[in-house]
Amino acid sequence: MLDALDSGSVVALAGGVGGAKLAQGLAGIVEGDRLTVIVNTADDFDLWGLHISPDLDTVMYTLAGIANPVTGWGIAGDTHHTLAGIATYGEDPWFSLGDRDFATHILRTERLRRGDRLTDVTGGLAGALGVTARLLPMTDDPVATMIHTDGRTLAFQDYFVARRQQDEVEAVSFAGIDDARPTAEVLAAVVAASVIVFCPSNPIVSIGPILEVAGMREAIARSNAAKVGVSPIVGGKALKGPADRMLASLGFESSALGIARMYRDLLDVLVIDETDRELAASIEALGMRVLVTQTVMGPKEDRERLAGEVLAGVRRAGSRK
Amino acid sequence: MLDALDSGSVVALAGGVGGAKLAQGLAGIVEGDRLTVIVNTADDFDLWGLHISPDLDTVMYTLAGIANPVTGWGIAGDTHHTLAGIATYGEDPWFSLGDRDFATHILRTERLRRGDRLTDVTGGLAGALGVTARLLPMTDDPVATMIHTDGRTLAFQDYFVARRQQDEVEAVSFAGIDDARPTAEVLAAVVAASVIVFCPSNPIVSIGPILEVAGMREAIARSNAAKVGVSPIVGGKALKGPADRMLASLGFESSALGIARMYRDLLDVLVIDETDRELAASIEALGMRVLVTQTVMGPKEDRERLAGEVLAGVRRAGSRK
Repeated sequence: MLDALDSGSVVALAGGVGGAKLAQGLAGIVEGDRLTVIVNTADDFDLWGLHISPDLDTVMYTLAGIANPVTGWGIAGDTHHTLAGIATYGEDPWFSLGDRDFATHILRTERLRRGDRLTDVTGGLAGALGVTARLLPMTDDPVATMIHTDGRTLAFQDYFVARRQQDEVEAVSFAGIDDARPTAEVLAAVVAASVIVFCPSNPIVSIGPILEVAGMREAIARSNAAKVGVSPIVGGKALKGPADRMLASLGFESSALGIARMYRDLLDVLVIDETDRELAASIEALGMRVLVTQTVMGPKEDRERLAGEVLAGVRRAGSRK
Repeated sequence: MLDALDSGSVVALAGGVGGAKLAQGLAGIVEGDRLTVIVNTADDFDLWGLHISPDLDTVMYTLAGIANPVTGWGIAGDTHHTLAGIATYGEDPWFSLGDRDFATHILRTERLRRGDRLTDVTGGLAGALGVTARLLPMTDDPVATMIHTDGRTLAFQDYFVARRQQDEVEAVSFAGIDDARPTAEVLAAVVAASVIVFCPSNPIVSIGPILEVAGMREAIARSNAAKVGVSPIVGGKALKGPADRMLASLGFESSALGIARMYRDLLDVLVIDETDRELAASIEALGMRVLVTQTVMGPKEDRERLAGEVLAGVRRAGSRK
């Protein structure tokens, strides 16, 4: 396992900010040609005719080292003149897009319209920004997370951004998921992986859609890779976003144990925060190893520290198998 | 004629910067609901998937009072971060687009893609910027000026911007012109006009395409409106752009007299600059009246001064009929 890991390839499954941080940590310690990040695209949507891929962009900007360090999304130091111009025309600037960020959406949209696959478009954009890891959308097909709440159905960004996650989530569905297929690149990466890392992203609306793409859950389950997750829930709370409230309202436990139960059939190792050390025994009782460490990530060096511990934890778990 | 003029409506035919200046002058002295500006769209092109309408935008920004006073096009004080972002992805930023300017192109493109007519899109954008005059594209159909030079054919913006008008123009054609129709709005404005003003725009590539749209030349010729043009050539030179060299290489005379000959069957009055006073008799010999004044326009007040003289000149010409 140790040899396989050192020369083998790593696949990370990621949503937005939290996933991007660990992906950046992995990118700092795994050579680019050995690291593939498979990113949720169920948050993608069209705005003013432009194709926005929030999670892909967050991971791309983070891996490129240009992400806004305060928000975790968007580009550091970006200005908002184009958005202000759009507002001048009477449009509601409800979704924040920076000027340099607009360049991404404009070119992505142009290239998709001319028939390029999102996979290739993403590779081209990320490569131009100097990203050496392989960045893959979970699928080239359209999938849209829908939030069902209080008798209404909201598009994800309407729930997440426009309404600031104020609604209690009664159910989540992924429009288009039945027709979505993983790309050849995604399947090949999963098959070739020595380690698959479930980043600390929302298990319902970030990792969830990736696993729901036809055949993905099975491909991951069948893979010989060691599978390790990092709990996005620390001390019962989500570090970012509504995952904790969403888990609770959907009937899951908002804790590292709840996360372990959701990923029970998939993970060999779950990494939990020191805060949750007392949950380790209950999680191990589910049949997975537990690594306890500091999971709340600071700047890049700290992300690399956690990534290193995650991969080392996989090695130790592997050696015990 | 005086009564008809004071209560009647004015139609201006315009290209970019020069036309926009006189249109702004007219807008300062004619109420918005009596002024229609019909604008060349043969320069329109697609860039990074966005529909750019350079002349419509120049006239719109000028009438809105937000045009860059140095260039005459673009928006005053605009920044260029989105364009810089596009260059980051390896694209050649050969066509300057400001951040606020991008907002125009993004919304225009979105609205055209959803099926709105360019006429309605333009009205919506201009209205939001506070433009009270009616701004109309010459047609809703695609027309593209092609520059034939040295055995090659160049798209207009390739000739005009990318190659900085360095090529000798051997011929000009308008792709799509045979299928382009004037809109109901354009025809109604021409029929209702008391005065039609040919702004000091390039007669070949700005006013030319407007007249070439099927039925437009005839509609203008048949109209009872007084027709007055302002020469874009002063002292044999174009005030802006390549009109002088283009006229010469195409076999026209680059002078106010040359302009008069081109518009001979259409104009009742030609306004020429004091510099060209000695051409007045030759122009009048062609059968049109001449008004000699200062035609080189400074700031807004000066544009209104010229617009007032143009309309007054039409009145006097009318009274002599």
